[in-house]
Amino acid sequence: MQVQTETDPKISAHLLQRFNEVRKFSVSLAKPLSEEDCCIQSMPDASPMKWHLAHTTWFFETFILERFEINFRPYHQAYRVLFNSYYNGVGQKHPRAQRGLLSRPSTNEVIAYRHNVDMRMGALLERAISNDSVSESILDLISLTELGIQHEQQHQELMLTDIKHMLSMNPLFPAYENSLPVRHRSSLENADKVTWISLDAGVVMIGYDAISFCFDNEIPRHRQFVEAFSMASRLVTNAEYAVFIDAGGYRNPVHWLAEGWDWVRNQGLTQPLYWYRPDDKLWHEFTLHGLQRLDPQAPAIHLSYFEADAYAHWAGARLPTEFEWEMAATTSSSSAQLLQLFGTAWQWTSSSYAPYPGFVAAEGVVGEYNGKFMVNQYVLRGSSCVTPVGHTRTTYRNFFSVGARWQFTGIRLAKSI
Amino acid sequence: MQVQTETDPKISAHLLQRFNEVRKFSVSLAKPLSEEDCCIQSMPDASPMKWHLAHTTWFFETFILERFEINFRPYHQAYRVLFNSYYNGVGQKHPRAQRGLLSRPSTNEVIAYRHNVDMRMGALLERAISNDSVSESILDLISLTELGIQHEQQHQELMLTDIKHMLSMNPLFPAYENSLPVRHRSSLENADKVTWISLDAGVVMIGYDAISFCFDNEIPRHRQFVEAFSMASRLVTNAEYAVFIDAGGYRNPVHWLAEGWDWVRNQGLTQPLYWYRPDDKLWHEFTLHGLQRLDPQAPAIHLSYFEADAYAHWAGARLPTEFEWEMAATTSSSSAQLLQLFGTAWQWTSSSYAPYPGFVAAEGVVGEYNGKFMVNQYVLRGSSCVTPVGHTRTTYRNFFSVGARWQFTGIRLAKSI
Amino acid sequence: MQVQTETDPKISAHLLQRFNEVRKFSVSLAKPLSEEDCCIQSMPDASPMKWHLAHTTWFFETFILERFEINFRPYHQAYRVLFNSYYNGVGQKHPRAQRGLLSRPSTNEVIAYRHNVDMRMGALLERAISNDSVSESILDLISLTELGIQHEQQHQELMLTDIKHMLSMNPLFPAYENSLPVRHRSSLENADKVTWISLDAGVVMIGYDAISFCFDNEIPRHRQFVEAFSMASRLVTNAEYAVFIDAGGYRNPVHWLAEGWDWVRNQGLTQPLYWYRPDDKLWHEFTLHGLQRLDPQAPAIHLSYFEADAYAHWAGARLPTEFEWEMAATTSSSSAQLLQLFGTAWQWTSSSYAPYPGFVAAEGVVGEYNGKFMVNQYVLRGSSCVTPVGHTRTTYRNFFSVGARWQFTGIRLAKSI
Amino acid sequence: MQVQTETDPKISAHLLQRFNEVRKFSVSLAKPLSEEDCCIQSMPDASPMKWHLAHTTWFFETFILERFEINFRPYHQAYRVLFNSYYNGVGQKHPRAQRGLLSRPSTNEVIAYRHNVDMRMGALLERAISNDSVSESILDLISLTELGIQHEQQHQELMLTDIKHMLSMNPLFPAYENSLPVRHRSSLENADKVTWISLDAGVVMIGYDAISFCFDNEIPRHRQFVEAFSMASRLVTNAEYAVFIDAGGYRNPVHWLAEGWDWVRNQGLTQPLYWYRPDDKLWHEFTLHGLQRLDPQAPAIHLSYFEADAYAHWAGARLPTEFEWEMAATTSSSSAQLLQLFGTAWQWTSSSYAPYPGFVAAEGVVGEYNGKFMVNQYVLRGSSCVTPVGHTRTTYRNFFSVGARWQFTGIRLAKSI
Repeated sequence: MQVQTETDPKISAHLLQRFNEVRKFSVSLAKPLSEEDCCIQSMPDASPMKWHLAHTTWFFETFILERFEINFRPYHQAYRVLFNSYYNGVGQKHPRAQRGLLSRPSTNEVIAYRHNVDMRMGALLERAISNDSVSESILDLISLTELGIQHEQQHQELMLTDIKHMLSMNPLFPAYENSLPVRHRSSLENADKVTWISLDAGVVMIGYDAISFCFDNEIPRHRQFVEAFSMASRLVTNAEYAVFIDAGGYRNPVHWLAEGWDWVRNQGLTQPLYWYRPDDKLWHEFTLHGLQRLDPQAPAIHLSYFEADAYAHWAGARLPTEFEWEMAATTSSSSAQLLQLFGTAWQWTSSSYAPYPGFVAAEGVVGEYNGKFMVNQYVLRGSSCVTPVGHTRTTYRNFFSVGARWQFTGIRLAKSI
Repeated sequence: MQVQTETDPKISAHLLQRFNEVRKFSVSLAKPLSEEDCCIQSMPDASPMKWHLAHTTWFFETFILERFEINFRPYHQAYRVLFNSYYNGVGQKHPRAQRGLLSRPSTNEVIAYRHNVDMRMGALLERAISNDSVSESILDLISLTELGIQHEQQHQELMLTDIKHMLSMNPLFPAYENSLPVRHRSSLENADKVTWISLDAGVVMIGYDAISFCFDNEIPRHRQFVEAFSMASRLVTNAEYAVFIDAGGYRNPVHWLAEGWDWVRNQGLTQPLYWYRPDDKLWHEFTLHGLQRLDPQAPAIHLSYFEADAYAHWAGARLPTEFEWEMAATTSSSSAQLLQLFGTAWQWTSSSYAPYPGFVAAEGVVGEYNGKFMVNQYVLRGSSCVTPVGHTRTTYRNFFSVGARWQFTGIRLAKSI
Repeated sequence: MQVQTETDPKISAHLLQRFNEVRKFSVSLAKPLSEEDCCIQSMPDASPMKWHLAHTTWFFETFILERFEINFRPYHQAYRVLFNSYYNGVGQKHPRAQRGLLSRPSTNEVIAYRHNVDMRMGALLERAISNDSVSESILDLISLTELGIQHEQQHQELMLTDIKHMLSMNPLFPAYENSLPVRHRSSLENADKVTWISLDAGVVMIGYDAISFCFDNEIPRHRQFVEAFSMASRLVTNAEYAVFIDAGGYRNPVHWLAEGWDWVRNQGLTQPLYWYRPDDKLWHEFTLHGLQRLDPQAPAIHLSYFEADAYAHWAGARLPTEFEWEMAATTSSSSAQLLQLFGTAWQWTSSSYAPYPGFVAAEGVVGEYNGKFMVNQYVLRGSSCVTPVGHTRTTYRNFFSVGARWQFTGIRLAKSI
Repeated sequence: MQVQTETDPKISAHLLQRFNEVRKFSVSLAKPLSEEDCCIQSMPDASPMKWHLAHTTWFFETFILERFEINFRPYHQAYRVLFNSYYNGVGQKHPRAQRGLLSRPSTNEVIAYRHNVDMRMGALLERAISNDSVSESILDLISLTELGIQHEQQHQELMLTDIKHMLSMNPLFPAYENSLPVRHRSSLENADKVTWISLDAGVVMIGYDAISFCFDNEIPRHRQFVEAFSMASRLVTNAEYAVFIDAGGYRNPVHWLAEGWDWVRNQGLTQPLYWYRPDDKLWHEFTLHGLQRLDPQAPAIHLSYFEADAYAHWAGARLPTEFEWEMAATTSSSSAQLLQLFGTAWQWTSSSYAPYPGFVAAEGVVGEYNGKFMVNQYVLRGSSCVTPVGHTRTTYRNFFSVGARWQFTGIRLAKSI
C-alpha cells in the first residue's frame, strides 16, 4: 500500500518500539471513558471507540499475522467479519451502521484481543530483527507493519472526533477529560491581522519524494502547473465566522453552491456543528473539555466543505487547490510566513480527491485502502490538533465528503492574482 | 388513570411491600448484563435497559413525589426530559430514537437515582400508612403508586423483549443468562392434538369489574353481542408454523392482507424473527438462553399480526376478536378446556385497539397513558412467559402495531360456526 | 364477490340499460378535461383519469369477457398488466406509483378500448337476455356485470377526487368546469343549530338484508350490542372547524392521537387540505369550481381521521362507531331527525375496517376485492356529494387510512350517554 | 455569463436569424409528440417537454425582455415562478420534482407564449440592428441573446434525453418517431480495432480563446501541466461492454469505486440503462426509434460515471482527465487520429467539475448559470448524437453527477505512460 518505507532491517528495532508506543497510545485514549462511552455509535459515519480499538488490531492480525505467522490461527473466528471495515477482498463485513449494536465483545475483551495480537506481532518483529539476511518477505513485513502503525494513527484521530460527536449528542454535555491527552488547538494572539502570501505561477513538483513512509495516494510525485495566487497567512477565526453568520450567511443562497444550499435548508442549519447560543446570548462551543465560551481568536472548526466554500465566497476569496496548498507549504519563502499549517485544523481545498497521474493501487487487499474512495470527496491538507504527533506531512492528503462536519476542519482562504 | 384500586389504607403497608419487591425485581433483571448491554438501543421501538430503569423511576418521581412530597426538588433537572417517554403534559422529551446515544448517566448513576426515589417513596408511603384519617389525597397517592407499580411491571416485560432483540443483533448470539429469572414458555406434550371449543351466541359482559387494579382501557364494563364461534384449545406450534413456511406461506399473496404482503416483500421476509436455519439444515431459534434447536411442540412466537392473520387464513380459520377471547376465557365451561391462556405468549386478536363505550381518559397527565394510542394497533390477550407474575388479567388489553415481532406474540385460532 | 343481486333474467334488459348509462357517465366526467388533465397522477394514492377509464374497462374484460365470451381474445396484451389494479390472481401489475408515467395509450385509445368492450359486453348480455332458461352461468354473468357496474361507480367518485387533487397541485388553481356534472355539497341554512338524537342500548341487526346488490363486506347480517348514545343531527361546519383552528387545534397535542400528532408535526399541518388564506386574510377553499370563499354553513370536508378525531376530542365528543351510525340511520325515529346522512360527505367512524362475523370472501380472483384491505383502515358511512346517484346504502362501508384527506370526508359527532 | 461573444452589431441580423432558427427547432422536436407525451416528468432529474419549451422562453423574457423592453409587462404573472429553473435571484421557483403535475398551461398555451416572446424579441433585436451607434446596452442585449440561444440548444439535447427516458418507462416501448430529426450515433465499421494515441508531457493551454461565444466555465484560458499519456482512438463499443458484463463486471466489487459499488447493489443493477435481454436471449436496446437489437459496433452509451470508471478499471485503463482530453483534441497530430470526438456520445473524464484558475461568475442573476454547480459533478467532453449541430467546441465542459445514466454518455479510455 505505502510505496516507500524504511526497508533497512537494522531499523526494525525502532519499528517495534514505535509499534508498541502507538499501540499503547490508542489504549490510553480510552482511559477517560466508561464502557458505555466506548460502545456507542452516534451516527453511521462514526464508530464506537471499542470498534476502533478492535479494528486496528484486526488490521495487524489480518494483513500481517495471517500472512507471516507460522501456524496462524485467528484469535476469534467472528472478529474476522465484525472488525473488517471495508475490505471486500477479506470477505464479509458487519454492516457499518450496526457497529453500535454490539455489546459483546466487551471493551475488556477487545483489550485482551489487543494484548494477544501485540504479543504475536512483537515475536514476529523480533524474529525478523534477529534475521541475518533481508528477504523480500521481511521487507514486506516491515512495510506492512509501518502501514499498520500509520493506519492506527489515522484511527487515533477518528477516535477523538467520534468520541466528541458521541458526547455532543448527550444533553448533559459531558467532558472527555480534564487532563486531556490531546492538544488544544492554537488560539492566535493577534488574530485580527491576516496577511496574504503571494506565489508566482509555475510548474511545481507535487507528491512525496522522501524515503520514509507515505500513503499510496501521495505518489507518484509529478508536475502540476499552478497559476499565480495568494494565500492567507492564517485560518479563518471564530470571530470572523460569527460575522458571516450575523450577516445572514446561512440565509442567503447567493454564497452557496446549489447542493450546499439544499443541504443547509434540508437540515435547517444556522451555525457550525457544536456551536450553541444558550438563551440566545453568547456563543458557546462544545469541546472535548465540555461546553465552553467561544474563543474569538481561535480558528473556526467543524465546518463542512459547503460552509468553507460559502464563507470564502462571502469573503471575496476562494478555497485553495491542494496543489496551491502544497506549493505554498513547501516553498521556503511562503511557508515561513504561513501560520497554522499543521496541528490546528485540517484545511479544505477545492480539489476533488483524485489519483495522481500514474497512480497504481497496491496489489492485493491493501489496494482497497485509498483508491476506491477517489470520488465525490474533497482533499484536506495540513493536520489538526487531534492528529497524532508525527503523523503529519506536507504531502498528506486527507479527504472527506462535502457535508462532513465532525472532523476538526477549518478554512484557509486563497485568491487568484 | 387506573379506575379501580385498593383504597383501604390498611392495605397500604402491603402496597409498600409490593412497591419494594417490584422495584428490586427490575434491578435483578439487569444483573446478568454488562454496562454495555444496558446502554444499547437496537431499534427505535426498543429502549436500552438503562433507560427502562430510569424511566420507571422518573414515573414515580414525576407523578407522585413532585405532587405529594413537601419541598420537592428534582433529583436531576435533565432527567425530567431524558426519561420522559411520551407525556406531552410534562414538557419536553428526549427523542425516542436517540435513547441509545446516552452513555451518561451510567447504569450505576441510574441505580443511584432509583435508590434515591425508592427511599423518598418509602418515606411518603409510610407517612400515609401512619395517618389516621383517609383523605382524598391519600387515596390519590395509593392509586398512583399502584399505577406506578403496574407500569413498572409492564416495563419489566419490555426489558426482556428489548434485551432479547439487542442480543439477537449480535452475530455472536450471546445468551442472556443460564439461570434466567424468567420462565421458559411451556412446551406441550401432545401438541399435535388440538380441540375446538364452541361457544353459543349471546350478549356478554366485557371489561373489568373487580375492586382491584385495572388500567383505564379495560373499562367501562359493558355489553357486547358475540355470534357463535369456536376457539382452538391451544396455540399454534412451531411445527405447525413450519408447515406453513414449507407450503410457501411467505411466497403466496393469497394468504396475506394487502398491506401485509407489501410488508413481507419490502423486507424480504421468509420466516419468523429469531428463526435461523444454519447451513440450510435444521431450524434454530434465538432465545434468551442463546441459539437453540427449534422445539416443535412449543408455541410459535415472535409473530406479527400480519403473520398471525396469514397463518390463520392458510389454516382455514381466523383470529378471534378480543370479545370472543374474553368470553371464552371467562366462561367456565370453555376456560377449563383452553390451554396456554396465560404465561405462554400474547395472543393476537382481530380487534383494533379502541375505547370501550363510555371510555373516559383520566384527568391530567396520566390521561396520556392509554387513550392516545387507540389507532392502528391490534389487541393482544393473555400474557407471555416474560410477563411478571401477578400482572395478568382476563380483561387485560395489550396492543401492538401490525408489524411488531419482537414481543412474545403467538396465534390462537378461531372459527365462526 | 357481491353476495346478493337481482337474479331474475327478465331484469337483465334493465341491467344492460344501466350498464350503458354508467359507462357513458364515466366518459362524460372526462369531457371537461384536456388530454394532459387525464394523464397526470398527482400522488401514489391517486390515479390518472385515463387510468380509471381503462381500469374499469379492464375489469369487465378480465372478469366477464374472458370467462363468458367465446373465442375471447384480449383487446391488447399489455393492457392486462397495465390496468390491473391489485389483483394478484390475474398476474402481474404495473406499479401503482407509475401510473402517471404512461403517455400511451392515449385517452383516445382508451376510449376506443372502452367502445370495444362495451360492444362485446352488450352482445353478451343480449344473448343472455334472449336465453330461455336461466343457467348457473347466466346468473354468474348477471352477478358479475352488476359488480362491474358498482365497481365503476366507485371509480366515478375516485375520478372526481383525483381530478380535484391533481388540479389543486397547480398554482393556477384551474376549475374543473363551470357546468359541473356533480352536485354542490349542501350548505345548511341554519347551521348554527345542532341537536343531539339519542338512542337506547340494545341488540341491533347490522348489515345488508335486501335482495338487491351489496358488496361482500356488508354481510353477513348479524347482531351487535350497542350501548346508549346520542348523535349530532348534522355534520360539523366550516365555521365550527375554523374555531378549532383559531383555538390552536393544530398546535396542541392534547387533542390528538399520538400517531396523529406525529402526522401533524412531520408534515407541518395547520389546516385542512384545500384551505388557503391568501394574504393571511379570509379563508378560501379550492373546489372543483376553482378557488372560492369558504362557506361557513357548509360542512367541513377533506379531513383525515386524525383531524376528525382531534376535532371531536376538542369538542368534548367522539366519533360514532359504524354500528351506532347504521343503527341511527335505520331506526325510523332517529333517521328522520338526522340531516346530511347521504350525498354530502362521507362520515368517519371510530370503527376499524374488519370482517363481519362469518365473513367469507368470494371465490376466485374477485375475492381480492375487499377482504385483503381489512387492516389499518377506518370505516366511513353515508355518501358524499360526488358519490354517483344510486350508489348509496345505509349498510355501505367505505374505508380509508387515517391520513387520507383527498376524499370528501367530514365529521358527525357522537356521545356516550 | 458568457464572456466572449460576437459584439459587432452588423452581425446581429445574423443573430436574429439564428434566434428564429433555434426557436423553431425546439418546437419541431415536439412535433412527433402528443400532448400527454409533452406533459409527463418521468423522474425529478428530467423535465416535461412542455416545461423545456416554456422555460427556454422564460429565459428570454426574464433576462432580456424584462430588462430591455420599454413598458415591459410579464406575459403571465404565474409563469415567472412556474418556469424558473434554479435562479434564486429571480425569486420563487416551482418545485423541480413537481413539474409533471401541471396540466395547465397546455402545450398549446406554451406555444402561444413562445410566439409572443419570439415576436417581442424580434422587435427588440431589429431595433438594435437599425441603431446607428453601438451602446453598452446593445452589446449586453446581443450578448444575452446569444446566451439565450446557447441555453436553448442545451435544452434541445435535454428534451431528447428526457423524452427518451419518459418513453422508456412505458412497457409498450413507444418510438419517438420514424423520421427522427436527430442523428443516429455512428456505428463504426471496424470497431474491433482500437489504437492508442500517445502524447508527450508538457504545459498546455486549456480553455476558450476565440472571439465567438463560450460559457463562463470555459475560461479563463490558462496553463495546465499534463504528464505523458495515451488515449484510445475510439469509444468503447457495445460488444466490448457486453464482455465486461459477461465477465461478471456488475458482480465484482474489485472494479468499482466504493460509492459505485453501493450504487450498483442498492439498485440491483446488472446492465446499462435501456439494455434489455428479452427471454434472456439477445441484447436489445431501447432507442428513440423503439426497441432494437443491440448494435455491437456502436459505442456503449447511457453509462454512469461509476460504470465508466469500473469498465476502465476492468480493462486495465482509466478515464482521461478533461485536460488530457482537450489536449488530445486540440493537438493536430493526435486529433487527426481520434474518432468519435464529437456527435457520438459525451465522454466521461475523471475531472471533477471545478472553476478554472481566475474564474469569475458573471454579475447578476445569470451568474447562477454555471458556478454554483461546481461540486460533486464530473466533466464530460465532446458532444453526442443528440447535441444540436453547431453547439460543439473542443473547450466545452458538460457535467453530470456520478449516477446519471439518461444522457448519451460513453467511455473513451486513457492510460498513463
